[in-house]
Amino acid sequence: MKKAVILVSGGLDSATVLAIAREQCFETYALSFDYGQRHRSELVASANVAKAIGAAEHRVFKLDLTGWGGSALTDATIAVPTSSVPTEPSAGIPVTYVPARNTIFLSLALAWAETLGAIDIFAGMNAVDYSGYPDCRPDYIAAFQAMARLATKSGVEGGAITIHTPIIKMSKADIVREGTRLNVDYAMTVSCYQADANGLACGVCDSCRLRREGFAAAGVVDPTRYG
Amino acid sequence: MKKAVILVSGGLDSATVLAIAREQCFETYALSFDYGQRHRSELVASANVAKAIGAAEHRVFKLDLTGWGGSALTDATIAVPTSSVPTEPSAGIPVTYVPARNTIFLSLALAWAETLGAIDIFAGMNAVDYSGYPDCRPDYIAAFQAMARLATKSGVEGGAITIHTPIIKMSKADIVREGTRLNVDYAMTVSCYQADANGLACGVCDSCRLRREGFAAAGVVDPTRYG
Repeated sequence: MKKAVILVSGGLDSATVLAIAREQCFETYALSFDYGQRHRSELVASANVAKAIGAAEHRVFKLDLTGWGGSALTDATIAVPTSSVPTEPSAGIPVTYVPARNTIFLSLALAWAETLGAIDIFAGMNAVDYSGYPDCRPDYIAAFQAMARLATKSGVEGGAITIHTPIIKMSKADIVREGTRLNVDYAMTVSCYQADANGLACGVCDSCRLRREGFAAAGVVDPTRYG
Repeated sequence: MKKAVILVSGGLDSATVLAIAREQCFETYALSFDYGQRHRSELVASANVAKAIGAAEHRVFKLDLTGWGGSALTDATIAVPTSSVPTEPSAGIPVTYVPARNTIFLSLALAWAETLGAIDIFAGMNAVDYSGYPDCRPDYIAAFQAMARLATKSGVEGGAITIHTPIIKMSKADIVREGTRLNVDYAMTVSCYQADANGLACGVCDSCRLRREGFAAAGVVDPTRYG
């Protein structure tokens, strides 16, 4: 069985990606980050998701990204935007963007993959809902993959390192349908930017809004636990 | 004054790069990593170097890379190679290679640069002495730079993020000459892979050997404090 590292945040998107990797017969190594995010209940959710979907191992890597500041997700002085003031792609890069976050996460996934002897990394970037985030776009992923193939021992010694982003072009409804087909239990996932300690969602942030609209459009009952 | 983030390890190479960035009139933000390396006295050295060369700020970012294993620099069960068994480029990738290390470090530099509003990053990779390390080669640096320009808010909004590697093609003797011209006090730098707690070098590891040969070839008195 081929090994793959999967970035798992505890949210709906990455849970779906983990299920897709499992369906493709990868032995999955789930990687989450304790980076000082507001929504720390996602770490509990990520452990539950990894276990439920059958990851061979789940690791939480600790690094403190709050010191840089600059994002609503790590800086308590910047408010998380809510549905009343939606963050549209046309409005530019959202305040919930964390500087270089996906690059840092993918780099750490690359390190773990190399020590596992894996050349496959799965991640839940989505360019439809997160078009305002530079590090969620297909051309960014392609550039990261090209860099990764030059950066590492495994890349140099012949393995074609591949960054799989199977949901990058899907709508939220498509993602919900795909995960439902794969029996993902979305009740255990937390997408909210400011979920409480018990994982209850606020229901009003951008992420909650996108998620709720996704279930509605997919015609799937929304199992989200709102606070 | 333009700001730049400089990766500073406390060694000879990065001290020289910091001095070069200062000569180019950058306001320098020195970044070091406490990643579980054997040679922890380099963290003391990096603080001394940053202060002596005039960095505006010096930060030590903590993240634990020992959990992955796979490198002599972070895994106590793997021996550091010594001059008696030199690691030649022809021998492949050295055991002192840390998986994806430079990619992780550059990614974190990118995050700090973005929050500082800087688009310049300096790093001391060298492809002459470290030709066996995939992440020290010019084509890797070019790929990282291309990725960084797509990854970030600053890259997207018009700044041409640049990864400066001014010593990448220099011999160790050239680096010593350049640093000597710039009045770098190499006595405070630590290059040894297994320096003791006081920063005294072992004198026999690959890094010590390269450094000593560099001073000899440059005709500069070697100020290294050997144990």
